[in-house]
Amino acid sequence: MSIVTLTTDFGTRDGYVGEMKGVVLERAPSARLVDVTHDVPAGDVWAGSWTLSRVWTRYPPGTVHLAVVDPGVGTDRRAAAVRIAGRWLVAPDNGLLTLASGEVEVARELDPDRVGLEPFSDTFHGRDLFAPAAGLLAAGADPGELGPLLEAGSLVRLPVPAPEREGGRIRGRVVHVDRFGNLVTDIPSEWLPDEPVAEVGDYEIRETGRSFAAVESGAPVLIRGSGGTLEVCVRDGRAAEVLGIGRGEAVDVRPAGA
Amino acid sequence: MSIVTLTTDFGTRDGYVGEMKGVVLERAPSARLVDVTHDVPAGDVWAGSWTLSRVWTRYPPGTVHLAVVDPGVGTDRRAAAVRIAGRWLVAPDNGLLTLASGEVEVARELDPDRVGLEPFSDTFHGRDLFAPAAGLLAAGADPGELGPLLEAGSLVRLPVPAPEREGGRIRGRVVHVDRFGNLVTDIPSEWLPDEPVAEVGDYEIRETGRSFAAVESGAPVLIRGSGGTLEVCVRDGRAAEVLGIGRGEAVDVRPAGA
Amino acid sequence: MSIVTLTTDFGTRDGYVGEMKGVVLERAPSARLVDVTHDVPAGDVWAGSWTLSRVWTRYPPGTVHLAVVDPGVGTDRRAAAVRIAGRWLVAPDNGLLTLASGEVEVARELDPDRVGLEPFSDTFHGRDLFAPAAGLLAAGADPGELGPLLEAGSLVRLPVPAPEREGGRIRGRVVHVDRFGNLVTDIPSEWLPDEPVAEVGDYEIRETGRSFAAVESGAPVLIRGSGGTLEVCVRDGRAAEVLGIGRGEAVDVRPAGA
Repeated sequence: MSIVTLTTDFGTRDGYVGEMKGVVLERAPSARLVDVTHDVPAGDVWAGSWTLSRVWTRYPPGTVHLAVVDPGVGTDRRAAAVRIAGRWLVAPDNGLLTLASGEVEVARELDPDRVGLEPFSDTFHGRDLFAPAAGLLAAGADPGELGPLLEAGSLVRLPVPAPEREGGRIRGRVVHVDRFGNLVTDIPSEWLPDEPVAEVGDYEIRETGRSFAAVESGAPVLIRGSGGTLEVCVRDGRAAEVLGIGRGEAVDVRPAGA
Repeated sequence: MSIVTLTTDFGTRDGYVGEMKGVVLERAPSARLVDVTHDVPAGDVWAGSWTLSRVWTRYPPGTVHLAVVDPGVGTDRRAAAVRIAGRWLVAPDNGLLTLASGEVEVARELDPDRVGLEPFSDTFHGRDLFAPAAGLLAAGADPGELGPLLEAGSLVRLPVPAPEREGGRIRGRVVHVDRFGNLVTDIPSEWLPDEPVAEVGDYEIRETGRSFAAVESGAPVLIRGSGGTLEVCVRDGRAAEVLGIGRGEAVDVRPAGA
Repeated sequence: MSIVTLTTDFGTRDGYVGEMKGVVLERAPSARLVDVTHDVPAGDVWAGSWTLSRVWTRYPPGTVHLAVVDPGVGTDRRAAAVRIAGRWLVAPDNGLLTLASGEVEVARELDPDRVGLEPFSDTFHGRDLFAPAAGLLAAGADPGELGPLLEAGSLVRLPVPAPEREGGRIRGRVVHVDRFGNLVTDIPSEWLPDEPVAEVGDYEIRETGRSFAAVESGAPVLIRGSGGTLEVCVRDGRAAEVLGIGRGEAVDVRPAGA
C-alpha cells in the first residue's frame, strides 16, 4: 500500500506519464499513485526542485517521490535514489533535489543494467529507469538492488543564493512565480520587521496583511506566505506582471522609518 | 480505504495541490485520492459549486469531497464540514456548497485550533485547514473533533435564480459554459415541449436532437443534456462564441407554433 | 484492488471526468483509478488510439483501461469491452482500439439496457455506459453481463498506412506530434541504416544521436525514439514548427552515400 508521487515536466497530453505509472504499478501492483504535477516548465530543474521542496515532507514516511525534470537525459548525468527523513526521492542527479534538505540516510546511483527496462531508451529514463526504481522501492526492495552507493556529498546542487540581513536591512530574491503571478521570495517571514517596507523593482510596498483580503483590489501587498517566506502579491491581479518582476530578481526590505 | 476527492481552483502547476494531498495522506494513510478538477476558474465559487453538484452524489457513501475555491481565505468566512446523503463535503462556507442539495445530516464548523496545522497560514487554508479536516474524516475521526456544530440553515447559499414556466413558455438561464463551449441551462429537460423553439440571444433555435449527431456541422442544436437540463450546443463548434452568449444570460423556450 | 485507467478528451475543467470516476468507484469501491490523460485533442480518435497503444501493456494483467474519445456519441456506433493480453479495454468501437494490437481473448458489445445508468444520456456515454462497464469488470463481474459477444474481426479499425522499404530506402509517416513538437514516425528503429539520411519536408537531416544531447541547440536530430520508432526532434525546439511538418506527412530515409 505504498504511496508513489509523481512530479514531472511531461505534461499530460501524450500519455508519457501514463507509461511511467504503468511501469511503477507493474513492479508495485498495490502502490497508490499520487500526481503532484506534470506542469513543471519544460526542463526547468530549479522550478521542479522548488515544487518538490514544498511537497515531499508533507507525505508520510515510506512515501516514494518520483521526480523527473531531465533536460540532460542521455548524457552522463547520474540517476539517484536518495532517502531523507524516511522518504525516498528518485530523480536525475542534476540538481532536482537541491531544495530537498535534510540528512541523507541512504543514497544509491541507479544502475540501468540492474534496474532499467529492456529495451532501454536514452530519451525516456522517466519510464525506463526512474519508474522501475520507484516501483522496486515501493514494493519493498532492498535499496542495494538499485545500484552502487552514492556519496551524499557528491549529489549535484544548484547554487542557492542565501538571503542576507544587516542592521535591519534584508536582501532576498524571488525564487518562484506561481500560477497566480505571486512572487515567492526566499526571505524568511520571521526576519520581517513589524512594519516592513519592501523595494521590488521600481515599487515600494508598505501594505502588509495576513491575506489578500487586507488590501483593495489591484493593490500590492506583502504576505507572510504559506511556505514560510515573504510573498509579494497583488489582490485580484498578477504581481509578476503588475510589478514587472520575475524569478531571480532582488527584493529589499527595511523597517518603516529606517 | 476511504475515498477523498479534490476539487480546487489551484491549477496543478505549483504543487499546491500536491501539498494538500500529502496532508490528507498523513492523516489518512490508506485513503485513495481522486482528482475531480483543479481547473475551476480562479475564485469562481459558482463554477466550483456547479462542478461539485454534478459529481458528489456519484461517489459511494462515505466519500469525503474536499473542495477549495476560496477567494475569501483569511477573512472571517467560516470553514465547514457538512454531511449530506452519507457523503462529506469539506469546504469554505462561501456558497461553494450551494448546489449540493439534500438534507444536511451533520454540519461542523472547522476550528483551526483543533484541526489546523502548525504553523498555520492565512493564505492557504486548503492545506492547513481543509486538508487536515478531510484527512481526519477519511480516517474515521468523530466529526465532533473538527469543531462546533454549525446550524445547517446558516450555511451561505449563493442566489439561485429558478427557471420559470407559464402557459407553455419557459424562461431559464445559462448556468455553465463547459470547455467545449456548450451552454448548460437550468431548464429541466422534462419541461421541454415536444417541438421546442428556443430564443438564445439573437438566435431562434428549432433543431433538437438526442445528440450532436442530429445536425450538420456548425449548426446549433437543443440537447437534453447529461445533467438533466437543456443544453444549447453547436456541432463541431463552440455555442458560447457562435451565439455570443455567456453564463447568466436568459434562454426562452416555447412550443413550436405558439 | 483492481486498477482502472482513464484516457479521454474531456479535459479536466468541468468535472465530467470526476463524474466518470465516481461511477466506476460506485461499482468497484476498492478500485484504484489512474489518470492517463484527459488531453487527447477533442474528437481525435487516432491520437487517442496512439496514446493507448503506448500505455496499455505497461500495466499489470487485470487492469481495466477505460478510454473515451467519442465524437460519434449518440449515433449507432457500438460500444465495446475487449480483452487482449489479460487487460480489458473499454471504449467506443470507432477505431480507438486500432493500435491496441494482439489477439482478442474476449470481446463484448456493451448493452445499455444491461449496463447503462438510469437516466441514460445520449451525449455522455463515458459516464452512463463506459464507466459502469469498467466498474463492473474491475469488480470482477462476468463479462457476459455486459452484453452480447462481439466478433473480434468486426471491430472498427482505422486505416494504418504501413511503412515500406525497398533496396535500403524507407518510406514512413509522422504518426504523432507530441507536446514538445517532436515528430514520432512509424519507421521501426531497427530498420534504420547505420548512417541514415532523412528527408522531412524540405529538410535533409543527417545528425543522429542517442538523445537530444547529441546536437547543438536548435539543430534537428534523428532519434531512436522511446516507442521503438524513428523520431525527428529539434534540440530545445519544436521540430513540427521548425520543419513545418505535421501528422500524416511522409518521412523518407536512405543510407548515407546512397
